[in-house]
Amino acid sequence: MSTTDRELRVGMVGYAFMGAAHSQAWRTVNRVYDLPARVRMAAICGRDAGKVADAADRLGWETYTTDWRELIARDDIDIVDVCTPGDSHAEITLAALAAGKHVLCEKPLANSVAEARAMTAAAATAQAAGIRSMCGFNYRRVPAVTMMQQMVAAGRLGTIRHVRAVYLQDWIVDPQFPLVWRLQKDKAGSGALGDIGAHIIDLTQFVTGQRISGVSAVTETFVKERPLPTGSSGLAATVDGSGPATGQVTVDDAAIFLARLDGGGLATYEASRFATGRKNALRVEINGSLGTLVFDLERLNELEFYDATRPAAEQGFSRILVTEGDHPYMSAWWPPGHIIGYEHSFTHQMRDLVEAVATGADPAPSFADALQVQLVLDAVERSARLGSAWTEVEPALAQVAV
Amino acid sequence: MSTTDRELRVGMVGYAFMGAAHSQAWRTVNRVYDLPARVRMAAICGRDAGKVADAADRLGWETYTTDWRELIARDDIDIVDVCTPGDSHAEITLAALAAGKHVLCEKPLANSVAEARAMTAAAATAQAAGIRSMCGFNYRRVPAVTMMQQMVAAGRLGTIRHVRAVYLQDWIVDPQFPLVWRLQKDKAGSGALGDIGAHIIDLTQFVTGQRISGVSAVTETFVKERPLPTGSSGLAATVDGSGPATGQVTVDDAAIFLARLDGGGLATYEASRFATGRKNALRVEINGSLGTLVFDLERLNELEFYDATRPAAEQGFSRILVTEGDHPYMSAWWPPGHIIGYEHSFTHQMRDLVEAVATGADPAPSFADALQVQLVLDAVERSARLGSAWTEVEPALAQVAV
Amino acid sequence: MSTTDRELRVGMVGYAFMGAAHSQAWRTVNRVYDLPARVRMAAICGRDAGKVADAADRLGWETYTTDWRELIARDDIDIVDVCTPGDSHAEITLAALAAGKHVLCEKPLANSVAEARAMTAAAATAQAAGIRSMCGFNYRRVPAVTMMQQMVAAGRLGTIRHVRAVYLQDWIVDPQFPLVWRLQKDKAGSGALGDIGAHIIDLTQFVTGQRISGVSAVTETFVKERPLPTGSSGLAATVDGSGPATGQVTVDDAAIFLARLDGGGLATYEASRFATGRKNALRVEINGSLGTLVFDLERLNELEFYDATRPAAEQGFSRILVTEGDHPYMSAWWPPGHIIGYEHSFTHQMRDLVEAVATGADPAPSFADALQVQLVLDAVERSARLGSAWTEVEPALAQVAV
Amino acid sequence: MSTTDRELRVGMVGYAFMGAAHSQAWRTVNRVYDLPARVRMAAICGRDAGKVADAADRLGWETYTTDWRELIARDDIDIVDVCTPGDSHAEITLAALAAGKHVLCEKPLANSVAEARAMTAAAATAQAAGIRSMCGFNYRRVPAVTMMQQMVAAGRLGTIRHVRAVYLQDWIVDPQFPLVWRLQKDKAGSGALGDIGAHIIDLTQFVTGQRISGVSAVTETFVKERPLPTGSSGLAATVDGSGPATGQVTVDDAAIFLARLDGGGLATYEASRFATGRKNALRVEINGSLGTLVFDLERLNELEFYDATRPAAEQGFSRILVTEGDHPYMSAWWPPGHIIGYEHSFTHQMRDLVEAVATGADPAPSFADALQVQLVLDAVERSARLGSAWTEVEPALAQVAV
Repeated sequence: MSTTDRELRVGMVGYAFMGAAHSQAWRTVNRVYDLPARVRMAAICGRDAGKVADAADRLGWETYTTDWRELIARDDIDIVDVCTPGDSHAEITLAALAAGKHVLCEKPLANSVAEARAMTAAAATAQAAGIRSMCGFNYRRVPAVTMMQQMVAAGRLGTIRHVRAVYLQDWIVDPQFPLVWRLQKDKAGSGALGDIGAHIIDLTQFVTGQRISGVSAVTETFVKERPLPTGSSGLAATVDGSGPATGQVTVDDAAIFLARLDGGGLATYEASRFATGRKNALRVEINGSLGTLVFDLERLNELEFYDATRPAAEQGFSRILVTEGDHPYMSAWWPPGHIIGYEHSFTHQMRDLVEAVATGADPAPSFADALQVQLVLDAVERSARLGSAWTEVEPALAQVAV
Repeated sequence: MSTTDRELRVGMVGYAFMGAAHSQAWRTVNRVYDLPARVRMAAICGRDAGKVADAADRLGWETYTTDWRELIARDDIDIVDVCTPGDSHAEITLAALAAGKHVLCEKPLANSVAEARAMTAAAATAQAAGIRSMCGFNYRRVPAVTMMQQMVAAGRLGTIRHVRAVYLQDWIVDPQFPLVWRLQKDKAGSGALGDIGAHIIDLTQFVTGQRISGVSAVTETFVKERPLPTGSSGLAATVDGSGPATGQVTVDDAAIFLARLDGGGLATYEASRFATGRKNALRVEINGSLGTLVFDLERLNELEFYDATRPAAEQGFSRILVTEGDHPYMSAWWPPGHIIGYEHSFTHQMRDLVEAVATGADPAPSFADALQVQLVLDAVERSARLGSAWTEVEPALAQVAV
Repeated sequence: MSTTDRELRVGMVGYAFMGAAHSQAWRTVNRVYDLPARVRMAAICGRDAGKVADAADRLGWETYTTDWRELIARDDIDIVDVCTPGDSHAEITLAALAAGKHVLCEKPLANSVAEARAMTAAAATAQAAGIRSMCGFNYRRVPAVTMMQQMVAAGRLGTIRHVRAVYLQDWIVDPQFPLVWRLQKDKAGSGALGDIGAHIIDLTQFVTGQRISGVSAVTETFVKERPLPTGSSGLAATVDGSGPATGQVTVDDAAIFLARLDGGGLATYEASRFATGRKNALRVEINGSLGTLVFDLERLNELEFYDATRPAAEQGFSRILVTEGDHPYMSAWWPPGHIIGYEHSFTHQMRDLVEAVATGADPAPSFADALQVQLVLDAVERSARLGSAWTEVEPALAQVAV
Repeated sequence: MSTTDRELRVGMVGYAFMGAAHSQAWRTVNRVYDLPARVRMAAICGRDAGKVADAADRLGWETYTTDWRELIARDDIDIVDVCTPGDSHAEITLAALAAGKHVLCEKPLANSVAEARAMTAAAATAQAAGIRSMCGFNYRRVPAVTMMQQMVAAGRLGTIRHVRAVYLQDWIVDPQFPLVWRLQKDKAGSGALGDIGAHIIDLTQFVTGQRISGVSAVTETFVKERPLPTGSSGLAATVDGSGPATGQVTVDDAAIFLARLDGGGLATYEASRFATGRKNALRVEINGSLGTLVFDLERLNELEFYDATRPAAEQGFSRILVTEGDHPYMSAWWPPGHIIGYEHSFTHQMRDLVEAVATGADPAPSFADALQVQLVLDAVERSARLGSAWTEVEPALAQVAV
């Protein structure tokens, strides 16, 4: 742990899947990185008093509350970490920023462009007062992904020609899987598109340094009616088989879209929860005039690189094991070849956030970056509604200005 | 070789890449399969007298000619094998059918829907007189692909939810690669789309047993001007560096499209010659409600199968090495684990054609199957021209009837 | 964290690579598992006062000391965790057991069979008084490895015919890498053999449920002289280039051996620090009459299973992603497909140890299990000294009895 | 086909698995390579008149005979291709050389060192008279293997530290698989060791350019009694279930051995027919001080190369698809990414043999090279008999001299 005495006191709202992942990261970040501030896990907030008390004890938070407004009102909270479903991101975040708290908000930033614009504007205002905001696109901090970004920025791929990105899961293939909140538009905003599609939109824009300028999209809800759930936890859920109670699925099961990047490349995207056998298959391939990079989240310690500038007879896809001490973020961990897991991306995220807040820098991805993702999501939904008509992504900047 | 005395005399038009591959197959088919007829490599035809004479000698054809009409007119030719660029498929094929020859025509069937319709109609007429027609979508005969089709037909995947198909190459990434015939619309019809996109359209329709009903597409020509070639062979070519002579690339370098299958599934397709590092990467994944199949032409002896009906804790993608004697077509070859190559798909194709002709059965893919591919190609081109507007694939059947 | 009030107070000796890994596990275990006792990280011990103070702060230990005897003497320590180099395992462990502490001792158990026998005898005596002992072969707790053991025990492989196990690293390929303690026989006991070879010996005996009965071995020290180090941390180290100071490497760089299992199978083993490009490549394949299992530590979330009882045409190596909630230890972590890392094996180890101590059960691997590994290491060294003569592994049991 | 008029007339003895593979190669070699002589498939010989007549017709040989002495006596035979089981290699080869025929003899060269020495001496005598001899270790001609050899020879791996080579099959795992000739010592000479172990011995000596100087070995026959066969073909066979007739397996099912290379490296070898799920898994990894090469015959178009001289953060195993026109032997085949199969190694072998004979050069591997393999096989068998005692490989050269 750092020798600093400076503390950053965190209050987290939400305690389910994301809450557990964030807690593990908050707990670990100072143990493995030498940082200019120490994190104190001050308070956790959730609606159910019993459950949030349990969570506080289990996950290691000093106090708990059932009222997020109370948490935000506390003087002894520096950072508010918003891990709730998307329908409350805007309200909590706007209140936290107004209260002068730094904010880490889970992705997608909001359930609508309007909310995302408001949040981005508020973040810009707060930034002028030294308040930092960050959106939780944690996959940017998978070391192999960070390395992709660095290699593209260094010109190793040349001109980008193609992006192909999929994020495939299969957890609702079974039509008897119940109607959890992630399948309800009022809570989740959208389905596979906003939940996992948002990740590949952000990741590819981050890695290429380019924006998606337009899209043509198709979305589909394969199973339109599902049994009501009796309980859920993370992505798992149970059904009460006792009755015929079902409800309508109001989000997409899958979304596919074509896109153009503003640098001239073509891209294809697919987000689905119906890809049988694919558990967490975020896969991205980027072809440039000088090389290709390939990443697969199920093997997140590896990065494939094809370097077309090598002698022709020796060219091939190199499987780089991104576990060396000089690979991004890896100095903190184990000797080469000792792999890290999914949760480490959150620890890396917290490292960068703590460092930014402590040193007065702006962390990335900013709310403006996250708004850009929201604008793409919006274009995808509009295109899908219009029979996959080509749909330009609305520009972000004009509207952000005040 | 079969004990039969029945001979089928083949005349082949064209002697480049496809001509060499077909010759190897014609030469081999009776050596490894026991068939009801023996192939006789009677005649080869090409425009350049010197080159076709060399080809005849090298590839093992008894005679040669520079006039395909002469070849078709011969009494001692039973099967005409059309291996020319797409711009002459229709003319040669129609003449051959009219002359009562069985026809094997390379893919894509034609350079336009109109031609393909005419050829399909002619094939239907000829079929009534006992004349057989087949289009050379050879990848159907890769054992792993045939096995995919059989498994889907047997219901092993359940309801098809997703198809994702790419055919990626990188042979023209270099902007100095010359303007060969495959880059000229008048000869090739289209670029990556018709050349390699046609393969994944046919393959996925074949494997799923479903048709693509509509598409939304984007095509792109990344390098619009190229040096004129001084010579070419197969996919390789040379440039005369002496002058500024260049020409316009009139076909697409890459095509991407979304599609709906008539069984309700979503599909994404991509064909590109700009995917650096991908040499012959035809990759298809099909997700169904009960399982998933994955195929990669660069590892064509393997088929990955995820069986979601297995005990949950043991589910995984099985790498099936499709080299067992009871796998499709494999009884002819080597012991298990001794892999076959690209060219074997042609031998399998010739096996099925010879058997069909000798026994009076209709081989597949028929011209009607190939017309269906042409209609999809046409819909893709129309969608791309209309800014990726959703475009229904024209029905084949109504127009074929007379 | 568990609702229990029962505490287990841990004192750890050592704070380098293993100390950091163990700390992360002690800190995490109650956060993710519901256990009958809570761990309290009471004290850490190391020789250098400044460094151990830093480590205590950074890793989260309440107190520190430079005297392990003092740590053992404390009343408020329940478990002593021995993470020092092998030359002090015996002394510390024997003292801790004598003081009535439960002991977790890192592998290999000791630097000699004599020490290991003494420790095993002491553990047996202590066990009668309710004191638990465990040796830290953490790879047993990689979920895929635990699953292998369960599948073999369930008869899924039938009769074991072959084991092939390698543990390959490359961190001392460079002859200028300095002479760290792991390369000195007096501290490390042996080189690649004891450090990483011990892991594959234990792992394969654990998974197969069989013992190695005899061996034939070759060991080699490729680089016999190395510069003296100026500093080291984990597996990394630095050299002071200022002078000619070098020292002799007194351990093996690589060890290869043949073995027979007491169930009749044949086995090959290889441990090397000179396998260029292999970072942490512990790979094990086990062939049985009914199937095969394959594991690779660099992809530790995956297990390959070939089930020869499946229909012949569908047999293949299945890549099982061992991330489902019902896979061993995985209920604690993330949704399917969200992978875990190297360090999680330690958390799983601590879980089982805490549970065993709290419930009065004997944890595995016991010191007797670890002695068995030591006996194999000893047989390997004797065989190598005797020109790879076949060497029976000394039986453990007779000598343990008192 | 070459423009030359020079013919090389081949007579082949044997018509089973190897006979079919060789025939395919003889038939193809002039079709794809431009060579200084044309092959004429003049005569085939086998013991069963009916079967050899069928084989001649099917495989494309002009004449057939049941008497190999007659074949050798013919004036119009230039090359004798010996594809029989190992027990007749010496007799046929010695007679052929004595008759002034060039000889291609399948591997292993002989069933004993004495025979191999005699053959090598005869080849040396014949060589002085312009007669060429070659042993059929065809895997040297897999392009990826040739490329490995070239890269090692060019110093790309630096000093060789480790070789690990396995050749794993599973075709006799079932104890009811019958007692075919390959399981009988008098015909096959040895079991897995001589059949497939010989390949990895030759391949690794070829690639490294080093000789195995000594070994320590264990062999095992897991199933000691098997039913007598009623028919067999290639590696497949059938059993007559009618009676209790069984016979003793007189060869090894598996052989494992440690070795030292004369350049100072350590090596492990394993040959087994009991590796469930492994069909033709010849896998070789070579670690040197500067890099590593990995090959797998089930993916024979690929070569993995780890180049430790690359920038540290980008090092990784590159999967080179060995299908480019400038890769060894590949100019003859298809565009990049279009893979070749097992049988192509024989075509490459015939190419080199034809070229050597036509130009008066000595083809490799020579009988002396094959004798070296035989000496290693012999050392392995002696070591196994002596309880895996370290056994020096007998030197070849002294005894060859006359």
